[in-house]
Amino acid sequence: MNKPEPLQNIRVVLSHTTHPGNIGAAARAMKTMGLRHLYLVNPRHFPDPQATAMAAGADDILAQAVVCASVDDALHDVVLTIGMTARTRDISIEVVSPRAAIPEILQHAASQPVALLFGTEMSGLTNEEVGKAQRLVNIPANPDYSSLNLAAAVQLMAYELRVGAVDFAPAASAQPLATQAQIEGYFHHLEQTLQEIGFFTAQKPARLMQRLRRLYARTRLELDEVNILRGILSVTTEYNARLRKRYQEEHPDV
Amino acid sequence: MNKPEPLQNIRVVLSHTTHPGNIGAAARAMKTMGLRHLYLVNPRHFPDPQATAMAAGADDILAQAVVCASVDDALHDVVLTIGMTARTRDISIEVVSPRAAIPEILQHAASQPVALLFGTEMSGLTNEEVGKAQRLVNIPANPDYSSLNLAAAVQLMAYELRVGAVDFAPAASAQPLATQAQIEGYFHHLEQTLQEIGFFTAQKPARLMQRLRRLYARTRLELDEVNILRGILSVTTEYNARLRKRYQEEHPDV
Repeated sequence: MNKPEPLQNIRVVLSHTTHPGNIGAAARAMKTMGLRHLYLVNPRHFPDPQATAMAAGADDILAQAVVCASVDDALHDVVLTIGMTARTRDISIEVVSPRAAIPEILQHAASQPVALLFGTEMSGLTNEEVGKAQRLVNIPANPDYSSLNLAAAVQLMAYELRVGAVDFAPAASAQPLATQAQIEGYFHHLEQTLQEIGFFTAQKPARLMQRLRRLYARTRLELDEVNILRGILSVTTEYNARLRKRYQEEHPDV
Repeated sequence: MNKPEPLQNIRVVLSHTTHPGNIGAAARAMKTMGLRHLYLVNPRHFPDPQATAMAAGADDILAQAVVCASVDDALHDVVLTIGMTARTRDISIEVVSPRAAIPEILQHAASQPVALLFGTEMSGLTNEEVGKAQRLVNIPANPDYSSLNLAAAVQLMAYELRVGAVDFAPAASAQPLATQAQIEGYFHHLEQTLQEIGFFTAQKPARLMQRLRRLYARTRLELDEVNILRGILSVTTEYNARLRKRYQEEHPDV
């Protein structure tokens, strides 16, 4: 098997990369393992001669790279986002090893787009970016010196994916998962509804939404489930509107 | 387990490295995974500011690096040498994947030094260097673009070793293996003996010795076995000497 198919559905998303050389080296690392889709969220310098130099023969990956203005843009059609973290635990999302994550990644990538999300060189993923991920992956490293270069981290993940893909056989087809855009649509709808029903008077919206995001990140929502959840929101809103209307009819002088 | 012990017995040997930046990046890759022992065989430039720059915080690995004049020097006390190759097969030594090689490496490294031998950037290991290895390891890669950077290859092997070391428990202690120097001593003794008994009149010594090296590379010789083989050579030589002496005594006029 020269080109294991799931690899064609996996994208590497580099958020706010500082050094263009790292973008080039990441492209080379991807290509050596058969990954092709590079997304760059607000790179500091791109295109850039340093990126091209470090890409060696992988300049086709750079030429096809998609530059995005936001992480949401880079993930909008993705059904599973793996956040790469130097932390070994997180308050609410499970942190697993690369090897433990591979089967799930390949399973989804067999039919739908999956993203590996890498934060900036100095500080990794922001809390907001972590909130977009359904899984976090920590690459095991020397606790006294865990300073993995960005391209080295891309290399290791791409390698694990290639090794995993050789023996990969997709499990029986599951329900289609919701894409990131569909999930964002739900969160937007949820926040509006919570606003409307006056839920936020006692709670800070941003913090609460973050907690709700993490809750839903642990399950990966199927498209049907998102439709059901949004249906509940719609009914809630309509019920509310009917109540308000009836109240106004009964109290025309208010 | 913060520092899995076998990693302390594993050395990375870089032969004839052209770019000092690769030496620095290799040192960083090693340190992230807890490897410490770097051997450099005739590096083109070392020490070098580029090496130091690429090492980031791993300059201690560079400072302790051992610069050698020959591969034999770098391997002299090693009991298992893993040759890293871009080839997927070899005429006489088994080529395995990194993951398949790890248990054997860790098993030996639990008690004695083991080497990972990396050739030069452009052309990899020479035939002579391949002849020093008991195993060849090929990192799986995209067949259309297998251009793995030297430091990336070091990173992947170091990572596999670290992951393997976490669950590692040494098997019951085996016979001590012969070191590379002991094996070289045997080959030197063998070549002398073959010369003496006139074996090389019909054969080219270099080519024949290469074939014998590969034969013995497939088994990993125990120290006891090397002693037995050298014992046979000694007896052969002595028997020869006795025959010659007796012949000379019986034919004092010859």
